[in-house]
Amino acid sequence: MAADFRLKEQLNSLTDRIVDSYKDIGNINHLGHCPLPSSAVIVDILKDLKEILYPGYRRRQNLHMGNVTYFVGDLIDGLHDKLTQQFARALRYEYDLKYGVDCDRRHLMDFEARGQQAAIEFLESLPAMRQILATDVAAAYEGDPAASGLDEIIFCYPGLEAMTVHRIANQLYRQEMPLIPRIMSEWSHSQTGIDIHPGATIGPSFFIDHGTGVVIGETCVIGTGVKIYQGVTLGALSFQKDNDGNLVRGTKRHPTIEDGVVIYANATILGGETVIGTDSVIGASVWMTKSVPPNTVVTIETPSLRLRDAS
Amino acid sequence: MAADFRLKEQLNSLTDRIVDSYKDIGNINHLGHCPLPSSAVIVDILKDLKEILYPGYRRRQNLHMGNVTYFVGDLIDGLHDKLTQQFARALRYEYDLKYGVDCDRRHLMDFEARGQQAAIEFLESLPAMRQILATDVAAAYEGDPAASGLDEIIFCYPGLEAMTVHRIANQLYRQEMPLIPRIMSEWSHSQTGIDIHPGATIGPSFFIDHGTGVVIGETCVIGTGVKIYQGVTLGALSFQKDNDGNLVRGTKRHPTIEDGVVIYANATILGGETVIGTDSVIGASVWMTKSVPPNTVVTIETPSLRLRDAS
Amino acid sequence: MAADFRLKEQLNSLTDRIVDSYKDIGNINHLGHCPLPSSAVIVDILKDLKEILYPGYRRRQNLHMGNVTYFVGDLIDGLHDKLTQQFARALRYEYDLKYGVDCDRRHLMDFEARGQQAAIEFLESLPAMRQILATDVAAAYEGDPAASGLDEIIFCYPGLEAMTVHRIANQLYRQEMPLIPRIMSEWSHSQTGIDIHPGATIGPSFFIDHGTGVVIGETCVIGTGVKIYQGVTLGALSFQKDNDGNLVRGTKRHPTIEDGVVIYANATILGGETVIGTDSVIGASVWMTKSVPPNTVVTIETPSLRLRDAS
Amino acid sequence: MAADFRLKEQLNSLTDRIVDSYKDIGNINHLGHCPLPSSAVIVDILKDLKEILYPGYRRRQNLHMGNVTYFVGDLIDGLHDKLTQQFARALRYEYDLKYGVDCDRRHLMDFEARGQQAAIEFLESLPAMRQILATDVAAAYEGDPAASGLDEIIFCYPGLEAMTVHRIANQLYRQEMPLIPRIMSEWSHSQTGIDIHPGATIGPSFFIDHGTGVVIGETCVIGTGVKIYQGVTLGALSFQKDNDGNLVRGTKRHPTIEDGVVIYANATILGGETVIGTDSVIGASVWMTKSVPPNTVVTIETPSLRLRDAS
Amino acid sequence: MAADFRLKEQLNSLTDRIVDSYKDIGNINHLGHCPLPSSAVIVDILKDLKEILYPGYRRRQNLHMGNVTYFVGDLIDGLHDKLTQQFARALRYEYDLKYGVDCDRRHLMDFEARGQQAAIEFLESLPAMRQILATDVAAAYEGDPAASGLDEIIFCYPGLEAMTVHRIANQLYRQEMPLIPRIMSEWSHSQTGIDIHPGATIGPSFFIDHGTGVVIGETCVIGTGVKIYQGVTLGALSFQKDNDGNLVRGTKRHPTIEDGVVIYANATILGGETVIGTDSVIGASVWMTKSVPPNTVVTIETPSLRLRDAS
Amino acid sequence: MAADFRLKEQLNSLTDRIVDSYKDIGNINHLGHCPLPSSAVIVDILKDLKEILYPGYRRRQNLHMGNVTYFVGDLIDGLHDKLTQQFARALRYEYDLKYGVDCDRRHLMDFEARGQQAAIEFLESLPAMRQILATDVAAAYEGDPAASGLDEIIFCYPGLEAMTVHRIANQLYRQEMPLIPRIMSEWSHSQTGIDIHPGATIGPSFFIDHGTGVVIGETCVIGTGVKIYQGVTLGALSFQKDNDGNLVRGTKRHPTIEDGVVIYANATILGGETVIGTDSVIGASVWMTKSVPPNTVVTIETPSLRLRDAS
Repeated sequence: MAADFRLKEQLNSLTDRIVDSYKDIGNINHLGHCPLPSSAVIVDILKDLKEILYPGYRRRQNLHMGNVTYFVGDLIDGLHDKLTQQFARALRYEYDLKYGVDCDRRHLMDFEARGQQAAIEFLESLPAMRQILATDVAAAYEGDPAASGLDEIIFCYPGLEAMTVHRIANQLYRQEMPLIPRIMSEWSHSQTGIDIHPGATIGPSFFIDHGTGVVIGETCVIGTGVKIYQGVTLGALSFQKDNDGNLVRGTKRHPTIEDGVVIYANATILGGETVIGTDSVIGASVWMTKSVPPNTVVTIETPSLRLRDAS
Repeated sequence: MAADFRLKEQLNSLTDRIVDSYKDIGNINHLGHCPLPSSAVIVDILKDLKEILYPGYRRRQNLHMGNVTYFVGDLIDGLHDKLTQQFARALRYEYDLKYGVDCDRRHLMDFEARGQQAAIEFLESLPAMRQILATDVAAAYEGDPAASGLDEIIFCYPGLEAMTVHRIANQLYRQEMPLIPRIMSEWSHSQTGIDIHPGATIGPSFFIDHGTGVVIGETCVIGTGVKIYQGVTLGALSFQKDNDGNLVRGTKRHPTIEDGVVIYANATILGGETVIGTDSVIGASVWMTKSVPPNTVVTIETPSLRLRDAS
Repeated sequence: MAADFRLKEQLNSLTDRIVDSYKDIGNINHLGHCPLPSSAVIVDILKDLKEILYPGYRRRQNLHMGNVTYFVGDLIDGLHDKLTQQFARALRYEYDLKYGVDCDRRHLMDFEARGQQAAIEFLESLPAMRQILATDVAAAYEGDPAASGLDEIIFCYPGLEAMTVHRIANQLYRQEMPLIPRIMSEWSHSQTGIDIHPGATIGPSFFIDHGTGVVIGETCVIGTGVKIYQGVTLGALSFQKDNDGNLVRGTKRHPTIEDGVVIYANATILGGETVIGTDSVIGASVWMTKSVPPNTVVTIETPSLRLRDAS
Repeated sequence: MAADFRLKEQLNSLTDRIVDSYKDIGNINHLGHCPLPSSAVIVDILKDLKEILYPGYRRRQNLHMGNVTYFVGDLIDGLHDKLTQQFARALRYEYDLKYGVDCDRRHLMDFEARGQQAAIEFLESLPAMRQILATDVAAAYEGDPAASGLDEIIFCYPGLEAMTVHRIANQLYRQEMPLIPRIMSEWSHSQTGIDIHPGATIGPSFFIDHGTGVVIGETCVIGTGVKIYQGVTLGALSFQKDNDGNLVRGTKRHPTIEDGVVIYANATILGGETVIGTDSVIGASVWMTKSVPPNTVVTIETPSLRLRDAS
Repeated sequence: MAADFRLKEQLNSLTDRIVDSYKDIGNINHLGHCPLPSSAVIVDILKDLKEILYPGYRRRQNLHMGNVTYFVGDLIDGLHDKLTQQFARALRYEYDLKYGVDCDRRHLMDFEARGQQAAIEFLESLPAMRQILATDVAAAYEGDPAASGLDEIIFCYPGLEAMTVHRIANQLYRQEMPLIPRIMSEWSHSQTGIDIHPGATIGPSFFIDHGTGVVIGETCVIGTGVKIYQGVTLGALSFQKDNDGNLVRGTKRHPTIEDGVVIYANATILGGETVIGTDSVIGASVWMTKSVPPNTVVTIETPSLRLRDAS
Repeated sequence: MAADFRLKEQLNSLTDRIVDSYKDIGNINHLGHCPLPSSAVIVDILKDLKEILYPGYRRRQNLHMGNVTYFVGDLIDGLHDKLTQQFARALRYEYDLKYGVDCDRRHLMDFEARGQQAAIEFLESLPAMRQILATDVAAAYEGDPAASGLDEIIFCYPGLEAMTVHRIANQLYRQEMPLIPRIMSEWSHSQTGIDIHPGATIGPSFFIDHGTGVVIGETCVIGTGVKIYQGVTLGALSFQKDNDGNLVRGTKRHPTIEDGVVIYANATILGGETVIGTDSVIGASVWMTKSVPPNTVVTIETPSLRLRDAS
């Protein structure tokens, strides 16, 4: 490799200037604080959870009812430890942020204990989560004529992938776990192109087909048996600001979608008070900011097309 | 790590309840069956194939005509073994699903023999596949003024990445290989945001620019020299149901795009009987459900814009 | 594994035919040339750079002002070596392409020296880059009511991820480094669904929310404090061709967005002469090919919706 | 990298000559045969077995009686699969060698079935093996005043490492498994410098201190509570040849060491009919080829030393 | 893989029997206790330390005085964390063993604080350790006519490897760190065949040539400039037992070797009161249990050889 | 992890003191010099070479005459590149050492060219090397009644492992390649406990049984069909010093062993003028410093043993 050492010594001055910038621009560092949760470990946790939720599809083969208990028991045990550590870090992070303290060693055991309680509460939610995910798999099979069977859906449908991570992240959101649900949902977003905020409330038998570009906001409420296509946005209409001009955080900003609704590709539905009534159908590219009653079919008046001969 | 053993013992009961759910909710497990194809191995196979199709760009450097035969011969030999095993698993999976049997050892050699035949048929398709991919690379260069050369396209264009995987997956689809083509196409989808069903029939010199959000359905037929942009959907208009209300699978549900057509961003073309005639141009955001003759330029009557001064 | 050797010998003939195709279809190989830059190393470089730009979030924990100098100095030193090698390869690639020569050993040291100069120029840009990225982080916090704090943004916002890579790639684009900026931007595109050409000029305090499907073209010029949403395209209107019918490369083909503009989801703004004036707001799904003056709010005349009762 | 292609083409001729040598010197290849057992997998198997035999010391922490069943059950299940495959390969190798056949597909299932039976027979031996290894650990503690406790012995005594592998390999030797026991014992030899043939019969409470250079032959028989030091050889006196001058294989060629014997460093005891009687002590560097009765202390008449002043 | 499930279910019973054996044979498990130090991390620590002691030879290249501070500072910082954790585990292990308690959470911070103090004390010893290791390297060069230079010694002499680990382990032994020094010395033993107890006191300029089979006991005291060859044992003569027949631990059991002594291959020197006087030479295969004065040359009266003609 | 930052800041001062020691103790650093050969790459090279010398035993399975050419050709091609780089580094290292220069960029291409020539000369030696290794394998089978076949020897005999590395290292020694042969031989030493200097001249059909502790010196000359056992030393009698008291390097210091000689365990043969005549047998533990004529059997007058009853 090149070796003009005078040039290289110049790098030492650069190092000093970069480190100085950590003082000047202090809010995009994480220096002198307790360790944050680890993105890499959180992704591992998601992979372990998928092995439990859908056993036999990926990492481990030759599973049967005679050996699956060992496999699951061992995973659960390892997850208990990983989750406890990551949750303790997230809870302490939130505490330090709130009280403006640097990492100290006090309360260490308290955060580990709280992390462990949260880990167990979370793990206890898995059997019910499998029940609801089974309805999502079935909904995908019923909704896509190209699907050859349930296994294909579990193996490769990005919509199911996104919903699996969402149901995990939403459980943690409801447990008020900081930071971790969002790390999970953005990892899923990067894998699938589907962006579901962990706060969204989504009923069983939910199916997203193709999925790229879907956005589902934090305060959405979605009923049973809803089906949506690629590019659908369930978003906020505008953001309320308070008297000081700051964004108001925490209100319902995203729509309600009732049972049995179908929303076709690239439709946009906005606003916290917008309700799409039961069994309604929203056509492709529709742009809605108001509620519709149940059993309504909404389509756009297709813009007129201009055709001319270019030959 | 935390060590309150009473809490941990609670996990044993949880393990039992999860395992019980494998009996109650039996259709999202793969227990007691023959091994499925491995997603990880299939991704490896795709990476090996790209080394053969575009030698010298990625894993291996310093290749020249004097040593490339060894490199390719060794890859082909390894691919023969990997493909044989994965194809045998996919074929046996299909058989077991069809006849409702658990994994038994009968016919083992039959499936391996069928897997090997399919592997060789597939590998024999590679020279012709390179010819058609060379037309795709050329089409990208001709179609994008930002491209500095062919190497940049091979190195980093997601549209070419998607088409490379598609031409592989489509070959296997035509060989009626179960499950594996879909695993391939969804892996490509997660990498590129471009969702092409392995069944789609696509002619040479095809170019997708930018690509995020593109959806191309199973029964599409696309001619020579077609060019499409991000967000384009070539989809189904609606799904036919039979008398029992079940989806009819296997009919032509997606459009036909003839030679030389250009389709701009976010256009949507739907329906199995829709034909876009030769050399036509479909404007951005157009929504088509009917055929147009050759040499037609279709644009939307842009929705009127309302401008108001907000200052 | 299967062992019918006659079938396997058939593979030798296939290998020969594939290698023959490297002669016949010679432009999608890289045989007999100098090594190209390595995609894998370039991704490593990006990960190292993120450790320097946002220390303490990912790979390394327990950093504080007392030890961060060692950590950064060691990374800078390693980056110097990696960048020098990759830049030398890219510069030599460009030279060989231009002069049509195969890889020879002459000028080797010249390219390494030029690579090293470029590496140092690039590394010197990091302190200023941190300053501008801090404004992007702040803009995200101000723009998204769902954000819990700056750390969440650094940890998981795809818009920030895309802008971080863009500001790196754009620096190299301005240094006229071949190939590498595009490898970087397409890697970011595959992670985030956000496609920003390295050539785009983007001011501070830029925020992309959700982001999937965003396309920003090479000759865009974007001011300070601009905010855009998923699916926004800032593209070319059409491509000029010269008298021989070849695409004209190098002109300004993409729009100018002035300070403080907000562009909502799926809006499309096209053309090199289109200017969106300061503090204007472009509504969702708007399709613009003309300039608007400052302080303009543009919304589409929403296409009429047809509602019918389907019950 | 260097690129004088003429020199490189010379490599092709070399490759041909090497491959020709595979025909001419055909007995140090393994070409055209069934796969051999994999050394790497066998080493993995040994590591898994050590986790079962001594749980909690290495790979996995935080084990307790509440979770260890899952951990062990999962390991046993995985070992069943790995052992079955490796044993099937070893048995088939032996068959092909004996009958002079190349790898064919017949009897495939027979070999897997025999491999599985052998795997289960082997796994069933583990509880008894733990009992005897516990006596070895205790013997080490009693025999070495430098040992701080049992954990130190399990963690780092090479003598225990060698005996653990030996008791595994000897079990397989008694099951007449080809090739694999020797691969195991030579792996242990390379780790510890202790060379014990898998065929050696060794009673409980055996302790090897330091160990480097110890050699224990195939037909040794060692009683209970024996202790040996580094450099001890328990070997063959000479090899019998038959009338044709070939070595006679399979007779007892190595000594018998009765209960309670201690053999100090570098002693050499040779011959299949040599018996060291109960509770005897063999001094350092003694060279024995004859039996001694019980309770005998054997020391060498130390060779006279010559001392001279070199100052 | 084989799939006779009845056979596999037999494995469940086996698992239960193995777990039962953890109760019956309870002293070769580590269940329900605090985590032990990790062998894998300790080996990593040794590799990091060698990078600091001999910079530029192995992992990292292109080091020079301009960048080595970052490299070393970063390694020291990481070592502080790893050592603190491992030392805390070792200290707690010792405490739990002594007081017979299972792992509880009390005193956690005390052990970490003690671990950190020990880590800093250890790291502070490194500059002096480099000084003494430089004398060992020089001694090897002076002692071996086959050595081409100092770099060859640092790169590949097992004697230096063993002494490097010994000087590290001995520092920790003197700090009374439990378990870890022995894990280090046995790792070195397995790499080099040289077995030096961490307790041995060894002066500067020590050289071991070839080394396989060397054993140096815990209470050895070795002066300056000593040189020994392969197979040399510096051991205990016999073990004292107390009135109850238990081994007496902690007395001086191994010899004293004064300055300038040379001991040739396979010599054995035993006994805590044996002193080899300054500048003496002990011949190959000599067996000493008594002291010799300074400047003595000791050789064996070579055993008479019997020569007979076998032709 | 612990976080008393005052203690940690103390580490910065320590870092400075360590770096200062790189100036004070300057001869055990490699700072400011060209990169040395890489031990890790050299071990990789040895593993690649074993795949070529004994194809089908380890990394790659399912090789047959139809595909082995690709496998070998690809390995040879990769080895050419790796060897060229490592040899260039070793040659430059020698040059810089000799002329006392720090790493500069001049002559870079000269060293690469010399490295490449040496690489090709080395690779050309492989076919003949296979011929001689085949005689070593046969000698092991003939010499060890415990061997079940040639495959067992190739798979796990440490003596063959040591000889394979030796024949490689000796070829490079004869090519006068600096440093690398010694790195190879010491790696082999650490794996097998057998220490053969790369300079030793060893004829065909050589067999080392068990092997731990064997030492064979640089200027040994060993004939055809020689067999030796564990612990045998073929060493130097004493080292000549010149008038200045420096060791004389480069004379014949180690013995000559003629064809057909057998040397039993722990025998020691010393001196450059010592010749063991054809077909002689040297008994275990014999200590020779003089020549013996052909066909001589040498045994020690076994030291008298003292037996006493200890019961």
